[in-house]
Amino acid sequence: MSDIDRIRSAAKRLNGHIRRTPLLHAPLLDEIAGRRVLVKAECLQWTGSFKYRGARAAVSALPPDVRSRGVLAFSSGNHAQGVALAARQFDVPAVIIMPADAPALKIANTRAYGAEVVLYDRANGESREALGEHLRDARGLTLIRPYDEPEVIAGQGTCGLEIAEDATRLGVENADVLVCCGGGGFTSGIALALEADAPGLRVRPVEPEDFDDVKRSLVSGHIETNNRPSGNICDAILTPAPGEITFPILHRLCGPGLVVSENEALRAMAHAFQRLKLVAEPGGAVALAAALFRANELDCETVICTISGGNVDADMFVRALSEGADAA
Amino acid sequence: MSDIDRIRSAAKRLNGHIRRTPLLHAPLLDEIAGRRVLVKAECLQWTGSFKYRGARAAVSALPPDVRSRGVLAFSSGNHAQGVALAARQFDVPAVIIMPADAPALKIANTRAYGAEVVLYDRANGESREALGEHLRDARGLTLIRPYDEPEVIAGQGTCGLEIAEDATRLGVENADVLVCCGGGGFTSGIALALEADAPGLRVRPVEPEDFDDVKRSLVSGHIETNNRPSGNICDAILTPAPGEITFPILHRLCGPGLVVSENEALRAMAHAFQRLKLVAEPGGAVALAAALFRANELDCETVICTISGGNVDADMFVRALSEGADAA
Repeated sequence: MSDIDRIRSAAKRLNGHIRRTPLLHAPLLDEIAGRRVLVKAECLQWTGSFKYRGARAAVSALPPDVRSRGVLAFSSGNHAQGVALAARQFDVPAVIIMPADAPALKIANTRAYGAEVVLYDRANGESREALGEHLRDARGLTLIRPYDEPEVIAGQGTCGLEIAEDATRLGVENADVLVCCGGGGFTSGIALALEADAPGLRVRPVEPEDFDDVKRSLVSGHIETNNRPSGNICDAILTPAPGEITFPILHRLCGPGLVVSENEALRAMAHAFQRLKLVAEPGGAVALAAALFRANELDCETVICTISGGNVDADMFVRALSEGADAA
Repeated sequence: MSDIDRIRSAAKRLNGHIRRTPLLHAPLLDEIAGRRVLVKAECLQWTGSFKYRGARAAVSALPPDVRSRGVLAFSSGNHAQGVALAARQFDVPAVIIMPADAPALKIANTRAYGAEVVLYDRANGESREALGEHLRDARGLTLIRPYDEPEVIAGQGTCGLEIAEDATRLGVENADVLVCCGGGGFTSGIALALEADAPGLRVRPVEPEDFDDVKRSLVSGHIETNNRPSGNICDAILTPAPGEITFPILHRLCGPGLVVSENEALRAMAHAFQRLKLVAEPGGAVALAAALFRANELDCETVICTISGGNVDADMFVRALSEGADAA
């Protein structure tokens, strides 16, 4: 099946089970950006993040006898909650393997969606892969990878179909589409959908400073890795490197990457609070940050950006409102 | 023209100029409420509040030669911004009369939408009415009242048409519709729309403690007033009494009123943050608060509630996240 056929097939399966999120617009954001800014509000997706699209697409693509034995994911964030909710909706077990030192909020959120959370002790060198293999073999679970998995990419691509449809309706034929980018599942899915349905829209990945593996990979033409695994508030999109499946798609279809600072992500959160009345998390605000604060790296009258907010905690949000006080 | 014809006429004029806001649903809110909760997200309306509907309806209903001379409003809040934006879109002047001690955020927001803000000194007994009459006569401005005005009620009623349409699509034939209620323009507009298009849905006004003039008026059958003009964080919906035009509509169509505490409004804001990724203001969160925390006063399987968030400042939002910490 071609990539776009896989996306359209996922869209059919997801129809009525995901939210068709709005493409929002706020005149006072346009003034900051110096151009029209359209915001694809994946904050309003189930679980607060686009990750639910991919999770539901992957779980729904499994043969029923395989699915009924349950699914497994390694994740401490939005992917975990997407898989948990999708599994609950199919009434099948979900096991999520998370580090024992993951934030309590993320563990609680994942359990709230009905998943069994299995913790491993990364400080003592416990291997999550060995734990996962054991659980998979013992229970017959199917692993749902967070991004390097064609059905997950197809699910994220349904967001691109919606962007294409809304852009066409608004008469937007040419625009940069800024996407918050970690392993590249969301970015590559949207790029594939736009290639088919809105070829004048160009995807550009946006990453946090010091975690610009995708930007560097697009320049070199090879998969480049980050120097460290963590240490940035944009934790939702920190991954070691673009995926083996996602990178060739990104390389073929995406324009140059953009990079924003932690402070810019926090200020974008404050602007989303003030002007869109939306709650974003730092990693879900980097594309809006690039739209607002990296105007000189953009060359289009209209910019479209994604925003999401699955797991932001109150302390981080308070910090954003404080550091982004100029937004008020 | 009948009330419902006026609403349908407003809906035609507003089509394409307002946001059709989504009716959101979060399974984890249902668990708190003990029933299905559907949230009409007027936070996502232009300016962050339903007030823009009524303002745009009223401004668009004026004859062009009258409108071109400009409009006038007394307001320190969401109505001011709704009138300011609607006037700007018609390229006509808007003058907003606000107290000199209004919060800086509200003054700045109103100016940001292009209005001329005229401040009066309420501490020294300056009369805003005299100031308004002077400006009206000198410049030929038309006063847009915040709620006791048929075209404003009709504009707010377009929200009710959307609720009726979405409830029908979801198969909801019977439900309580909880509406954040000040002077009653929003509440009566929605009630009129539902009377026509979804008669199984019953509107119930929700107010803050100590400012329950509408609840008491519905009990007594006469317009009752509040004892004091201010002194509650739900400032967006504090009015002296239901309107002369709105009260008869409320009395004919609405079920018993509900009242929530300031703490309940703050906790509802925290739940909206956590589960809906929406920014609400205290006055725009009272209906969600009633849905979540006044279960024993409700008697329906599904409850629909409005939510809005035009003017919340960062400090108030931080307070909500702190007092509503159990939501996380």
